[in-house]
Amino acid sequence: MTVTFFGAQDEELPSGSAPQAGKAAALACLTHMGLPVPAGFTLPPELVSGPRAQLQAAAGQALQRLEQITGRHLDDAARPLFLALRPDTVPPLPGALQGLLNLGITDGTVGALAKAERRFAFESYHRLIMGFAFLVHGIDPHHFEEDSTGDRTAEQAVERGRGIFRQLSGEDFPQSAHAQFTTALEALVRNWNAPRTLARRHLRGGGDTDLAITVQRMVFGNADTQSAAGTLSTRDPATGVAKPAGAFLWRVQDMGAASFRPVLPIERLGEVSPDAAKALKALVPVVEQSFHDAEEVDFVVESGQLWLLGARPQKRDARAALRIAVDLAQAGIISREDAVARIDPMLLDRILHPTIDTDAARCVIAAGLPASPGAAWGEIVFSPDEAERLAAEGRRVILVRVETSPEDIHGMRAAVGILTARGGMTSHAAVVARGMGKPCVTGAGAIRLDERAGTMSAGGMTLKAGDVITLDGSAGQVLEGIASMSAPDLPEDFATLLGWADDIRRMRVRANADTPSDARTARAFGAEGIGLCRTEHMFFDAARIRAVREMILAEDEASRRAALEKLLDVQRGDFAEIFEAMEGLPVTIRLLDPPLHEFLPKSDADIEDIAAGMGTSPDRLRRRARELDEFNPMLGFRGCRLAIAFPEIVDMQARAIFEAAADVEKRHGFSPMIEVMVPLVATRRELDLVRERIDAAAAAVAEETGITLAYHVGTMIELPRAALRAGDIAQSAEFFSYGTNDLTQMAFGISRDDAGTFLGAYMQKGVLPADPFTSIDREGVGELIRMASERGRTVRPDLKLGVCGEHGGDPLSVGFFEEVGLDYVSCSPFRVPIARLAAAQSALRFRKRRKSRV
Amino acid sequence: MTVTFFGAQDEELPSGSAPQAGKAAALACLTHMGLPVPAGFTLPPELVSGPRAQLQAAAGQALQRLEQITGRHLDDAARPLFLALRPDTVPPLPGALQGLLNLGITDGTVGALAKAERRFAFESYHRLIMGFAFLVHGIDPHHFEEDSTGDRTAEQAVERGRGIFRQLSGEDFPQSAHAQFTTALEALVRNWNAPRTLARRHLRGGGDTDLAITVQRMVFGNADTQSAAGTLSTRDPATGVAKPAGAFLWRVQDMGAASFRPVLPIERLGEVSPDAAKALKALVPVVEQSFHDAEEVDFVVESGQLWLLGARPQKRDARAALRIAVDLAQAGIISREDAVARIDPMLLDRILHPTIDTDAARCVIAAGLPASPGAAWGEIVFSPDEAERLAAEGRRVILVRVETSPEDIHGMRAAVGILTARGGMTSHAAVVARGMGKPCVTGAGAIRLDERAGTMSAGGMTLKAGDVITLDGSAGQVLEGIASMSAPDLPEDFATLLGWADDIRRMRVRANADTPSDARTARAFGAEGIGLCRTEHMFFDAARIRAVREMILAEDEASRRAALEKLLDVQRGDFAEIFEAMEGLPVTIRLLDPPLHEFLPKSDADIEDIAAGMGTSPDRLRRRARELDEFNPMLGFRGCRLAIAFPEIVDMQARAIFEAAADVEKRHGFSPMIEVMVPLVATRRELDLVRERIDAAAAAVAEETGITLAYHVGTMIELPRAALRAGDIAQSAEFFSYGTNDLTQMAFGISRDDAGTFLGAYMQKGVLPADPFTSIDREGVGELIRMASERGRTVRPDLKLGVCGEHGGDPLSVGFFEEVGLDYVSCSPFRVPIARLAAAQSALRFRKRRKSRV
Repeated sequence: MTVTFFGAQDEELPSGSAPQAGKAAALACLTHMGLPVPAGFTLPPELVSGPRAQLQAAAGQALQRLEQITGRHLDDAARPLFLALRPDTVPPLPGALQGLLNLGITDGTVGALAKAERRFAFESYHRLIMGFAFLVHGIDPHHFEEDSTGDRTAEQAVERGRGIFRQLSGEDFPQSAHAQFTTALEALVRNWNAPRTLARRHLRGGGDTDLAITVQRMVFGNADTQSAAGTLSTRDPATGVAKPAGAFLWRVQDMGAASFRPVLPIERLGEVSPDAAKALKALVPVVEQSFHDAEEVDFVVESGQLWLLGARPQKRDARAALRIAVDLAQAGIISREDAVARIDPMLLDRILHPTIDTDAARCVIAAGLPASPGAAWGEIVFSPDEAERLAAEGRRVILVRVETSPEDIHGMRAAVGILTARGGMTSHAAVVARGMGKPCVTGAGAIRLDERAGTMSAGGMTLKAGDVITLDGSAGQVLEGIASMSAPDLPEDFATLLGWADDIRRMRVRANADTPSDARTARAFGAEGIGLCRTEHMFFDAARIRAVREMILAEDEASRRAALEKLLDVQRGDFAEIFEAMEGLPVTIRLLDPPLHEFLPKSDADIEDIAAGMGTSPDRLRRRARELDEFNPMLGFRGCRLAIAFPEIVDMQARAIFEAAADVEKRHGFSPMIEVMVPLVATRRELDLVRERIDAAAAAVAEETGITLAYHVGTMIELPRAALRAGDIAQSAEFFSYGTNDLTQMAFGISRDDAGTFLGAYMQKGVLPADPFTSIDREGVGELIRMASERGRTVRPDLKLGVCGEHGGDPLSVGFFEEVGLDYVSCSPFRVPIARLAAAQSALRFRKRRKSRV
Repeated sequence: MTVTFFGAQDEELPSGSAPQAGKAAALACLTHMGLPVPAGFTLPPELVSGPRAQLQAAAGQALQRLEQITGRHLDDAARPLFLALRPDTVPPLPGALQGLLNLGITDGTVGALAKAERRFAFESYHRLIMGFAFLVHGIDPHHFEEDSTGDRTAEQAVERGRGIFRQLSGEDFPQSAHAQFTTALEALVRNWNAPRTLARRHLRGGGDTDLAITVQRMVFGNADTQSAAGTLSTRDPATGVAKPAGAFLWRVQDMGAASFRPVLPIERLGEVSPDAAKALKALVPVVEQSFHDAEEVDFVVESGQLWLLGARPQKRDARAALRIAVDLAQAGIISREDAVARIDPMLLDRILHPTIDTDAARCVIAAGLPASPGAAWGEIVFSPDEAERLAAEGRRVILVRVETSPEDIHGMRAAVGILTARGGMTSHAAVVARGMGKPCVTGAGAIRLDERAGTMSAGGMTLKAGDVITLDGSAGQVLEGIASMSAPDLPEDFATLLGWADDIRRMRVRANADTPSDARTARAFGAEGIGLCRTEHMFFDAARIRAVREMILAEDEASRRAALEKLLDVQRGDFAEIFEAMEGLPVTIRLLDPPLHEFLPKSDADIEDIAAGMGTSPDRLRRRARELDEFNPMLGFRGCRLAIAFPEIVDMQARAIFEAAADVEKRHGFSPMIEVMVPLVATRRELDLVRERIDAAAAAVAEETGITLAYHVGTMIELPRAALRAGDIAQSAEFFSYGTNDLTQMAFGISRDDAGTFLGAYMQKGVLPADPFTSIDREGVGELIRMASERGRTVRPDLKLGVCGEHGGDPLSVGFFEEVGLDYVSCSPFRVPIARLAAAQSALRFRKRRKSRV
């Protein structure tokens, strides 16, 4: 309940605990640095929200003290005290509530102010009347402004203003500064809780904010020609380099006056007052040193004298944020831990991908799902062949399809971005695009494709092949034409900061990588292993799809084995390249978990083609495809269910893995760290059945090659039952990898691909705080993970625990995984830096929390 | 380790604890009743499975004791002792292991046996040689039999037999009875653990069975013309009435000789020996009294003297089982609790539905899923209209479709059974047929329908409309022609026994009933309320489907409300009829949880028709239908998600419920007990949002009608997340109803409709002990239920807990629900008697277990 004082360094300040945050804290800090702050005090939230009488009494007492400190008094015609009343909230809610300047001007005191310049004094008086009218009576300023134009003198304007005030409020404008003060204070508190303000507070997410009130001696930036008001940033906002920047207005009370005065660059402040400009320049290093950050400082120059009215951390974009943090840490102003802690990991996404400039015009013609981040522009093409052809000519193309399928891979590779009318966040297009690091928008339902006509209509316009669009894969938007964007190039600070993060974090960061090229990208981004290699994605390739289809559609073991034989070579080759790229770091290979329906042939031509290849009739094949068709593929013949029904698939895959590893060991002399992962296990017995096959293949390859390889066998925990039975399953598993996508789908009973119809409404209506497919649902899915981890580790204390769902790259979720004590997270290669940073921050938070508990 | 003795009531029996089960126990009991049992002893499993030397020593001692008791000795030419060695397992594994009769016959002792009749003595000797050869040396009896035909004397046959024995075994047939005994005993134990026997044991599910061995003085049913062997049942096996039945063979050692002697009815035993027949008749009541059950007794008549060799509970069909249990309880021989405990609840299913006679020939032409139990025959029809037309002519028809949809309802009602080529256990056809209590086979993939030609081919034959087939809905089979079957008529004992069950059980039994007619059926079967009224099933009706489609396809709230207006009347009417039928018993009405895809129009004609009705274009409608199409409908826009997106649906349904209840109260003077259930809740907030609407509708109806109705609002717990968050959800729910179908689907990540491809293999490979959709998975899904119940009741101690998934009618699952302490189970009307009985048995078991713990 203590009122705290600031400013007035000439005098002794009354004691009191310093405020921790907000404007009051900044003013206290500036004062402490010996910088010029007009004297004043802060009425703390406990007082402001308490009984009114108590507030007024405390404010009255503090005011007397301020009069002593300043040697000026309210209503004193000789040395009058003028005040600024400002609301002070943490976090700041600019615009939610207006304060009051110039308090204390009356007919009795205006004379003292007018000694220097008459016009300025009456303009200030007029502004007080307008401000008071609005604050106390809710009278809109336009009532005054319309009348204040013309060629009246400032004095006449004040006279007129008082008339309007009387007319609209039914009262005379108070001629006692004390009365002004108590009335304004009362009104400020009342307005804070008025419905209109509550609504604005809520809108800004500040429903629970507390209000403090700062009362400060007025300094007048409009006093004379040597006066001004402005803002200074201690750093260049775009780059973060230590080059102060800022702007000011000449002869105004605050920057809000920008509408009728030209904004001048800070470099020209010397023209107003060389002394003030010099003083301002000098305080930059002091401010950063004291606030431990780059700051934005509000100042006023009153008759050549510099005064500081506030300071706050300066806004910054990704690059600037990195530069500032690294600079400050290298200068010893903050610790490396602090540098790491203060960067929002998601900011890095803006550096890793090209992004559309925030201030560029956006002509959005369709919206869909943000399936793969980044931005790209290119010519529309409707077929993968055309995409390949045009790309070969060096043209930038965006592949537009209803949905993509494995046959489209060559076109997707050729394109700079992918747009589909159907499909969700885990559709073929989305998964492949994320792996390739290409922007992708899926499920853009508003798009109508007329493939025959070669046109696409959206947002009321019809575009044809060759027309240019831009995809914003981070926002899920389709823009017409070329939007202005920035390309990624990773600044040095990026590597420096992530290096520090790596020193801090406890959890390892791996990448989900399905191909040798993915693996190399992942390494470049600092992945310490592969946490998920989806072997079915290796088959998303036109050259291989045929053998995969033959395998899936085979009606007996013999023809299945024949198809598998064809796949053995390509898988072995892929695995070998991946092992090479990872140079002995762990590689978790998940056995086949195919989205069967994506591999089934649909067109008659495809069916006839495959039937011919398999030596069977199209009708027979069609029937087999129909048998495999499912009502709910997500709940169907997937994962290890396939491995158990057709163990020869496991045999082939395990053989490919171990032969590749033996080959790499022979050629390169290092041992790949192999982790074989069994998907979609619900019971321990499933794992045991598949494990037998894996062990047998390992033994066979060891026998044949003479090379005995170390390897681990583990499982995905992606079904609620698996989480519940983790104690059982851990008896056969050396590691668990949480498949948080599926776990979320099953726990909620929501298919990510079908959630579009209602998930938006759910967040709007407060059913869900956030999309549970983006940030882990701590209460539900999280409990399953916690439970499984505890049960698993009880049985097997050295059980390795990781996560390979998309949550592995979400900072909020990473924080949860740190709490649970997972060993690693795995995410898509382009998310690896984000995860590295998030893991470091989580480790810091967790350490701190544990410390505070001790 | 104690060897127990039996028989020989003239002598004092050596003391020893009586065996608890098996042949040994039966013999002990018969002895205890004073009935004639040849003296003998049992070597218990602990001894048989122990060290061989110990076994032989104990057997030798017991044998000496038996010699004392009988006054006969092995190898004594004057008064020789002959023995029967019989394996004795609990449960019995007939045929798994052969014993040995006539042990002790040698050249030295056969003379004593031959005093009465020479031929019989040597025939017995010959049989011993064959039996010994098989038991000890594994020599197949056919080696002897071929040679023993012809006109040799019995003595010559023995001579020849010994020659063959020597030739094939390399040894002489042992001429010491002691040697025969020790060798045979050794062989019996060895054979028990031989791979061949182990396989047979395993096949019969007796892998863990222990072996005891009974050694008993031989009595000879083949001694002379006054000798025989047979079996007597104390009751008529078909009906269970107290009329002994049985059969015997004249002059044989056991009933196994049936192949070469005519089987005679027990009534003719007087022709062999009037005394023995009289004695046998006299012991019937004594046996039932002592064994507390209807028994099947093995007997031998030796020279006019009756001997009993064993007794076991007699096999019985459903009706007989009921009759026996009720009779015995009414006679005071067993308690009502025992009567209730001993009926397998699933037996009732055979009484409730017509069943195909077990001994009838089955010409199975296709197999599918047992979607709805019972059996029916009828003419094939391929269209619902035709089904209706023919049924109106009084003909029995079976509707055959690829799949059914709501438009087919009139045809399904007209048909006596339904067969579909596609669809699972929860498909439209399956759900509707179960509700109607009609046999149904779904997913009969082997059937090819050619609707244009009006033919169906299966099992290599082509059938046309009008051809007759039989459906076995309990087995999931399609049979050609009319299979012989029995119709259900419920015996009086059924009602009596279920009445006793009702007195015993703690849990209530409700029915899942969707229509007034279902509700009436449920009442007739003893349901104490409706646990699940699926309001969407009310729409499975051609007359209503149109309005439902308009509602689903509406693009804005106004047209949705217009469609809902049409549905309000029919829903109100249905609810009123259901409330009337239930006369104040609880009725749980689940808000709309539609399988959207089943309601979407598919044919162009349907789309045009609906578009015309809605005043929109077919293209627009087609687009809307496409928007609603889902990849995984089970994980899609279902349950309360619909209610939250379109609250006007809740408004309509809640209004229909409360208006109907007010109407019933006004007209009948009793208050319906209303429970409104919100489906597919994952978070408390969902329930709150829907609840608000329900409460508002209740208040509005109370205001309009002046009748204030009591009601409860609760939720399904059918998502794993809901189970985890049950503590939260219980704050807003007055009851939980576990939707175990969905809970199982989500916990396992298995769609019941798509599980056909792998679930069979899973049970075969021991991954799952049973189909988790039939019997609740205690370890996984069960833990979720247990957890939710505990968390829910912690927050709200009077939370009502029930289950409305199909597990509610499965006896094993009902046992689990009793353990968890649920308040009620709900199942389809035809399962209600099964659930009533199962609930009573569970209560008995649970009480007993708790008692035994005290």
